[in-house]
Amino acid sequence: MAAKLKGNLVVAQSGGPTAVINASLAGVAQEGLVHGEVITGVFGALHGIEGILYEQLIDLGKERPSTLTLLRKTPSSALGSCRHKVTTDDYDTILKVFKAHNIRYFFYIGGNDSMDTAHRVDQLAADAGYELRCMGVPKTIDNDLDFTDHCPGYGSVSRWIASSVRDAGLDTEAIGVVDKVKVIEIMGRNAGWITAASALARDHEGAAPHLIYLPERPVYWDKLFNDVQKVYDRLGYCVLTICEGAKGPDGKPLAASTRSIDVDAFGHAQMGGVADLLCREIAANVKLKARFDKPGTIQRVSIALQSKTDQEEAYLVGQMAVRHALAGVSDKMVTLVRESNEPYHCTTGLADLDKVANAEKLMPADFINEAGNDVTEKFVEYALPLIGAPLPKYAYFKKVALPKHLG
Amino acid sequence: MAAKLKGNLVVAQSGGPTAVINASLAGVAQEGLVHGEVITGVFGALHGIEGILYEQLIDLGKERPSTLTLLRKTPSSALGSCRHKVTTDDYDTILKVFKAHNIRYFFYIGGNDSMDTAHRVDQLAADAGYELRCMGVPKTIDNDLDFTDHCPGYGSVSRWIASSVRDAGLDTEAIGVVDKVKVIEIMGRNAGWITAASALARDHEGAAPHLIYLPERPVYWDKLFNDVQKVYDRLGYCVLTICEGAKGPDGKPLAASTRSIDVDAFGHAQMGGVADLLCREIAANVKLKARFDKPGTIQRVSIALQSKTDQEEAYLVGQMAVRHALAGVSDKMVTLVRESNEPYHCTTGLADLDKVANAEKLMPADFINEAGNDVTEKFVEYALPLIGAPLPKYAYFKKVALPKHLG
Repeated sequence: MAAKLKGNLVVAQSGGPTAVINASLAGVAQEGLVHGEVITGVFGALHGIEGILYEQLIDLGKERPSTLTLLRKTPSSALGSCRHKVTTDDYDTILKVFKAHNIRYFFYIGGNDSMDTAHRVDQLAADAGYELRCMGVPKTIDNDLDFTDHCPGYGSVSRWIASSVRDAGLDTEAIGVVDKVKVIEIMGRNAGWITAASALARDHEGAAPHLIYLPERPVYWDKLFNDVQKVYDRLGYCVLTICEGAKGPDGKPLAASTRSIDVDAFGHAQMGGVADLLCREIAANVKLKARFDKPGTIQRVSIALQSKTDQEEAYLVGQMAVRHALAGVSDKMVTLVRESNEPYHCTTGLADLDKVANAEKLMPADFINEAGNDVTEKFVEYALPLIGAPLPKYAYFKKVALPKHLG
Repeated sequence: MAAKLKGNLVVAQSGGPTAVINASLAGVAQEGLVHGEVITGVFGALHGIEGILYEQLIDLGKERPSTLTLLRKTPSSALGSCRHKVTTDDYDTILKVFKAHNIRYFFYIGGNDSMDTAHRVDQLAADAGYELRCMGVPKTIDNDLDFTDHCPGYGSVSRWIASSVRDAGLDTEAIGVVDKVKVIEIMGRNAGWITAASALARDHEGAAPHLIYLPERPVYWDKLFNDVQKVYDRLGYCVLTICEGAKGPDGKPLAASTRSIDVDAFGHAQMGGVADLLCREIAANVKLKARFDKPGTIQRVSIALQSKTDQEEAYLVGQMAVRHALAGVSDKMVTLVRESNEPYHCTTGLADLDKVANAEKLMPADFINEAGNDVTEKFVEYALPLIGAPLPKYAYFKKVALPKHLG
C-alpha cells in the first residue's frame, strides 16, 4: 500500500446535469471529510474544469453536514457544470492551480470527455513529478460509458421515462379517438439507452409505447409509416418513442439544429426536432393527426422520479473513488459491476481512464428486436432493476359490457 | 326534499385526461354504489358521450372495490374520453339510450363543453317529461371554469409544472455557460393558469423561471428580447416559460398548427410550436443559444406528481354530485368554494350548468404583473395550496470561496 499522500482534495462536475450527480458529489465530499488526517481540505471547483482554470474554488468543509446529505436528493449539478474543451495551455494552468492549493486528490464526475480530461491531468502531473491522484466518477444519463455495467444517472432518467411514457400512453389510450398518434422525443445522440427505457412503461395488454426507434438502427420512412398504420389498425391509436439522435439510412440524424450558434465546443450540433418532423410526415403520409411531447432537459433532473438504486450507486462510486485514491490508485474510473440480477446487486470495480475516454457503448444487437422498432426482453431484464422500486400499480377495468338494447 | 328517484346511474369522462379525473370517477362510482336501494346500477360510458350514443356501457358494480379505490391514483381517463360535438340527432339518441337502460342519473366529468352537453341533456329530458338528474363534475387542467374557486386537475398539473420547472431551472443554472436560454412551453389556449404555476418553482434567490409569458398579455418581440437580455446580463443564463397559446399584439396565437388535420370538432387548431419559434427568434435577435422543453401531455397526467389536495377534491366533487342528485338537484355543476387559505380549506357549492358552459375564466388582472412578463404574489397565494404538500427542500451551497493564489 502506498504511503498516505497528504494534501487537499478538489471535486468537479461536468457535462449534462442529472438527478444523481449531486449524490456522487456527496459521496466524494463526505468520504473526503472523514479522512481529515490525510485530506486536509475538501474543495469544490465551480463549473467543472473551468473552476480550476479560473481558480473558482469553494470550501465544502464549510458547508453544513445536512447540506451535504441533502445533496443526494438535489437535482442538477450543485457546483455548476461545463462543456469546456481543455487546451494544452489549460493543462499547464490546471497544474499550477493544483500546486498553488496543494491539491493532491482530483475527482472528476462526468462522461467520456471528463474521463479524458482527468486522464490527461494525471499524465501531466506524473510527467512533472507532481504527486497527484486523479479519479473519474462516472455520470451520464446516456449510459454510453464502457467498462461499467451502467452509468449513474441512467436509472433515474429511465424511471422518469418509464413513468412518464406510461402516463402519456394512458392519455392517448383515452383520447386517441381525437389525438391518434403521439410521438415522444427522448434524449440521446448515438446511443438509444434512454429511449429504450420507454419499454419499461408497459404494464398491460396493448400498453404504450407501441414502437421504439433507436439511433442504432436506421429509420426507413416507408417502414415507419407502415409500422404506425399497423398499430393504428389494431388499437385505434399509436404511441411511439424516438431518440432525438435517430438516423436515416445515410447515417445522418433525421433532425438536428442547423444554427451555427447551436454547435458546442466539441463540434456537436444540438439534437432535437425529430418528433416535430415525424408528426408532419405521419400527418402527410399516414393521414393521422399526430402530436408530440419533447420533455427535453426535464427528463434528466427529476427528483420526484429519482431512482433510489441509482442514487445509492451514485453515492457509492463517489465514495469508492476517494477510498481507492487514498489507497494509492490513480488514473482510474470507478465502475459498477452487476453481481446478480435476482436479487439485483452491484459492487464496484476500476477501469483505466484512457480506455473509458475512447469508448462509446451503444445498445448491443441482442437488446434490439429484429425489425428495429422495439427492444428485446433481454434489455428489459437489464434495465428494470436500475429504476429502483417497481412503478406503482394502476387500476384497469375488466369492462363488463351491458347488453345493447338498441341498434 | 324530492321523492327518491329509482333507476340506474351512468357516468362519463370527457376532454383532455388529467391526473385526477379518475378520482372524480371513483367518487361518483363509490358513492353511487352506497345507495343501492335507489341507484339500482352504476354504469360507465366508454369514451364520453360517444359511449352513450353507441350504447357502449360497462357495469362498474362488477369491478373489484379495490380497483375503484385505486382509480384515485390512476392517471388519464379510465373510461376513455372524447371531444365529440353533440348534434341535435345525437340528443334524441341519448334520451333513447337513457330510457332503454332506465338511466335516471347522469354524471358528466369535464370542462365547458361537457357542461353544455349535460345541460342540454337535462333540458331535453325535462321537455320530454323523462325524469332525469344531470350533474356536472368539473375537470380541467386549464382551470378556466367560472363559478368555482379552481378546477380539479389544476392542482396536479401545477405541482408537475412547479417541480419540473424548478428542476429544469437548476439544470440551466448549472450548464447555462453552454445552454444559455431555456424556453419551457406549457399547455393552455386562452388562459395562462398552468403557465403561471411555473412561478411556484422559485425557492431561492435568482431561481427560475425568470420570465413568464401568458396568453392574457400580448407578446411584443422587442420587449421579449430585451427581457431575455436583461436576465442574461444579470445571471448569465435565462429560463422562461411561455403558454403554447401565447398571442401577439394582433391577438392571434404566435404559433399553432396550420395543418387542417389538426383542427378538432370544435374548430380549435392544435396549439404548439411557440417554444421552437422563440428559440429561433432569440438565437437570431439576442444571439444566445436557446433550447426548449415541451413536455406536452406528460404534464397533465403524472401520478408521481399528483397533488394530494387535488386528488381529494376531485373525489369530493364526484361524491357530492351523487349526493346532490339523490337529494333532487339537477342541471348543476358541483363547485369548489375556498373557505380559508391559512389553513387552506375548501367546501363545495353548486352552479348552473348553462352559466358554467358559457364562461371562460382567464387570469384576473391582479394576478399578472404590470410588465406582462410575470405573475404577482397574489397569484402565488392563490395557487400554492392547490399543489398539496410543499415541494421537498433542496441543498444550496453557501459557497465559501477560497482565496485566489494566482492571477
